[in-house]
Amino acid sequence: MTAEHYQGISAAPGLAIGHVVWWRKEKPEIDNSSISDPVAEVERLDEAVQVARQQIEHLRKTTVDRMGEEAAAIFDAHIAFLDDPAYIGEMKQRIQKHQKNASLTCNEVTTQMAEMLSSLPDEYMQARADDIRDVGNRILLLLAGITPFDPLSIQPDSIVVAPELAPSDTAQFPPGVVAMVTARGSKTAHAAIMARTLGIPAVLGLGEKIEEFIDGDTLVIDGDAGTVEKNPTPQKKIETCIVIKRHQQQREEALKKADMDAETADGKRMQVFANIGSPSDVDQAIANGAEGIGLFRTEFLYLENDNWPTEEEQTQAYSRVLKAFGDKPVVIRTLDIGGDKDLPYANLPTEENPFLGHRAIRYCLANPEIFKTQLKALLRSSIHGDLWIMLPMVENLSEIREAKALLAECRTELMQSNIPIADSIKVGIMVEVPAAAIYADVLAKEVDFMSIGTNDLTQYTLAADRGNEQVAHLYDAAHPAVLRLVKKTCDAAREAGIVAGMCGELAGDSQMTEILIGLGLDELSMSAGAIPEIKEKIRPLHSESAQKLAEEALRQESPEAVRQLVQSQLVK
Amino acid sequence: MTAEHYQGISAAPGLAIGHVVWWRKEKPEIDNSSISDPVAEVERLDEAVQVARQQIEHLRKTTVDRMGEEAAAIFDAHIAFLDDPAYIGEMKQRIQKHQKNASLTCNEVTTQMAEMLSSLPDEYMQARADDIRDVGNRILLLLAGITPFDPLSIQPDSIVVAPELAPSDTAQFPPGVVAMVTARGSKTAHAAIMARTLGIPAVLGLGEKIEEFIDGDTLVIDGDAGTVEKNPTPQKKIETCIVIKRHQQQREEALKKADMDAETADGKRMQVFANIGSPSDVDQAIANGAEGIGLFRTEFLYLENDNWPTEEEQTQAYSRVLKAFGDKPVVIRTLDIGGDKDLPYANLPTEENPFLGHRAIRYCLANPEIFKTQLKALLRSSIHGDLWIMLPMVENLSEIREAKALLAECRTELMQSNIPIADSIKVGIMVEVPAAAIYADVLAKEVDFMSIGTNDLTQYTLAADRGNEQVAHLYDAAHPAVLRLVKKTCDAAREAGIVAGMCGELAGDSQMTEILIGLGLDELSMSAGAIPEIKEKIRPLHSESAQKLAEEALRQESPEAVRQLVQSQLVK
Repeated sequence: MTAEHYQGISAAPGLAIGHVVWWRKEKPEIDNSSISDPVAEVERLDEAVQVARQQIEHLRKTTVDRMGEEAAAIFDAHIAFLDDPAYIGEMKQRIQKHQKNASLTCNEVTTQMAEMLSSLPDEYMQARADDIRDVGNRILLLLAGITPFDPLSIQPDSIVVAPELAPSDTAQFPPGVVAMVTARGSKTAHAAIMARTLGIPAVLGLGEKIEEFIDGDTLVIDGDAGTVEKNPTPQKKIETCIVIKRHQQQREEALKKADMDAETADGKRMQVFANIGSPSDVDQAIANGAEGIGLFRTEFLYLENDNWPTEEEQTQAYSRVLKAFGDKPVVIRTLDIGGDKDLPYANLPTEENPFLGHRAIRYCLANPEIFKTQLKALLRSSIHGDLWIMLPMVENLSEIREAKALLAECRTELMQSNIPIADSIKVGIMVEVPAAAIYADVLAKEVDFMSIGTNDLTQYTLAADRGNEQVAHLYDAAHPAVLRLVKKTCDAAREAGIVAGMCGELAGDSQMTEILIGLGLDELSMSAGAIPEIKEKIRPLHSESAQKLAEEALRQESPEAVRQLVQSQLVK
Repeated sequence: MTAEHYQGISAAPGLAIGHVVWWRKEKPEIDNSSISDPVAEVERLDEAVQVARQQIEHLRKTTVDRMGEEAAAIFDAHIAFLDDPAYIGEMKQRIQKHQKNASLTCNEVTTQMAEMLSSLPDEYMQARADDIRDVGNRILLLLAGITPFDPLSIQPDSIVVAPELAPSDTAQFPPGVVAMVTARGSKTAHAAIMARTLGIPAVLGLGEKIEEFIDGDTLVIDGDAGTVEKNPTPQKKIETCIVIKRHQQQREEALKKADMDAETADGKRMQVFANIGSPSDVDQAIANGAEGIGLFRTEFLYLENDNWPTEEEQTQAYSRVLKAFGDKPVVIRTLDIGGDKDLPYANLPTEENPFLGHRAIRYCLANPEIFKTQLKALLRSSIHGDLWIMLPMVENLSEIREAKALLAECRTELMQSNIPIADSIKVGIMVEVPAAAIYADVLAKEVDFMSIGTNDLTQYTLAADRGNEQVAHLYDAAHPAVLRLVKKTCDAAREAGIVAGMCGELAGDSQMTEILIGLGLDELSMSAGAIPEIKEKIRPLHSESAQKLAEEALRQESPEAVRQLVQSQLVK
């Protein structure tokens, strides 16, 4: 056996060695038999639904433990279908009415609902169509007595291979999965984002070549280079294991020091914060050494309800996070719906270009009652910690002024009811619209802090939708133009004497840490898992050489040139 | 009668006084009578279709004369439906098969096709649904013997009032229309764009208030302020007429001097060019004093065909424009499809955010055969004039290099066939992605010129879709952040010793001319009608004070503040 090399798309960094496990999705055969006792058939369906519910709840729990509430939210959608009278109820009625067996009926109802959902011109509804197909398949397998492919049976050191991977697939990865390889997908695909969250390397977009991998094959995956090697030589195997071992030790070292401050060799103190999506992510953030929360996305409260969350519900959620962090800063971002985040009960109109549409602060200012409920909840929770309120998608000064006026209104109303509010609450903006960075000097005068959201900033600056695989090759936050906007924002913040942070994916990209420090950021906020490594990365750096590197990066021709510059720096 | 004042949205500048004419769209009643002679009924339909065709062709012709080929293109779509066997042919078959009258059948087939088209998740197809409804209505009116509302019956000094106006409505405006007022719509609505093309003031978004205007009411429209005054006092009427008269004289003066150069009082020479959408727009451009073409959009060649235009077809079109301008520059933009411009035969995939997607140069580089056909046609036409090739949507250096490599390839291939090519062809980029402006210094080294496309640049910089009325209040090219990017581009061009132009709508905004000169532009390109006024605007300016004004504009807090700054300047 000679080694074979494959080039794919680098989608999540890291090195791994392991055995191929094809991710199988059984398509159950539909049983055609006729039934004589519809009541017994309804019972049989009920049993299958009950077991399906147990399986999904188990999946949900293990996912929360491994990846947090946000990643597990998909299973709430699955369970919601099991509770939907238009779905399971409809099946039961049809079994009794048409005397067809449960399998045929389930297939029929699932297909109809999925087709209906996917015909709607809305990404959210289309994702629900995938969900209902998943749930239907699970019920059909249970009815047929087929044991579905059990992800928990995956052995340690497995590399998952599949044409593509859906959110409900990656959410089921057991800890034994060390890497993933797919035929389709790109750096911005969902699977890539999940791989980075899980901290495993991923090579996507290999095309039909993946057919050449069979269960049990040994692969070496280099997620940074986007390469796959099949049947590596014994020498290569050993070398790979040594490198992986060393990385692992470094990670363990970093984790041990996670609680310590991150200070450069010359004494510049960097704040390293966590991004969270729900209060249940707090423990993981603290365990990884987060010195505060740099981005608390509040959408979960809105997405997991089927109506606007009340002031009380919100106050509880915000207070929980503030209490957990005591006197450390907690940056809570106000509602950011629209764009790629729909809210069924908000009745958002369909937009041609939702990312350039009526989203975030624009929506909130146009719907002051909804916004004020959130602002009041924030004010009420403020007594439990150090609250920083962050406004998303700001592009001009009047948006800030309007939001602050509403906040003042809320403060007055609460004080009239004798509700206590902290005296010092910081109000800042997320810098993610290019205009906000370009005239950051003007905006800085009106706020207490600015935090750069590199995901949106990059897609607008490069006019490349971060979810569109066709332009994924253009989307890279290391583009010199994006870095120049980061610099502009940091300069404006320093001039105004306020904090400049970053809470986009770039903040957790360890390759870019030195440049980011050199550009003048005071605070970096990232997914909890990345904190120990980034802190460790900061410690040996020198401010002055970081600054020189950053200046050189700003003059580069392309994102690739910026990354090469960093690499050449490492070799030195 | 006392004067009444209404505040709407300023959508097209200018002052007008006139009488209300409601723009009526008759809904024909559908005749239910049965028929005995299907052959005669088919003949009756044929006659109606023939008259409809004559009406539409007449409309097309008058529209071309008044507004150019591009505006008239909508009527090609209408005629195409009359030629479509799936439409008229289907009606004839049904009349014979079901023995239903022509009116019922036409209504049935039109409704079905319109519903089918509008169910497709594609703006282009939805616009076709409106078109087919228009055509169907016209046939139904003719069948019923109803004389449709005849726009040509509109008297001089009429102000069109309507809930909203479709492209096929505004295209039919006779010269007697002096202003338009609608209930819905905004600055970026189609009606607003058409009003600016026609050079008449428009106040949109008045809501239900428009019901208070009845046919014959006298209105004063102030398109700059977005106000409408009903029943003005005699004094106000006289004042308005005097101002309009003065403006008209100024326009006539400007038109007389249109052929003269535009040079500031201190001798800075500005190039004033025209934007065109097809070779037939050339005459109007020359009549208005265009010193060259600053933007020749080549999409018409692709949109009016139902397959890729050949090298020969393209060569002819480009040569025609180059010949007309002799040794004056003609900037031809390479294909810019995707975004809001679909091309049915290109089979573009549906994108969540087409403006941030696979469009323009991205599409061309991914489809080199299509791109090379255009590049070869450009090279072949180059011998007829001074050709400048402009690449749209560039965001990094490698796109320019790839395009130039393909151009070199085309040159070699043509030279091998002994086809003559001009020696000096300029290659430049359209600066419309924020990144291109932000690191214009890097890109400038690789090109011969840069032209700022403010429409796209504004929507990306402000993250506000220029076609989305919900965010229309945010979309303004006078935003200081956009002006700063203009400055950055001009500075980079001057540093590199190349030309900096502008071909977006901002270039034709006379309020902004002084600032644009102050920012350092060498060339302004606009719709032909705006040229005389902009040239006249340039002549009394001084470079130094323009520069001071521009610097002050860059420091403003908002687009409104920039426009106020200009106003306060005028008062001085």
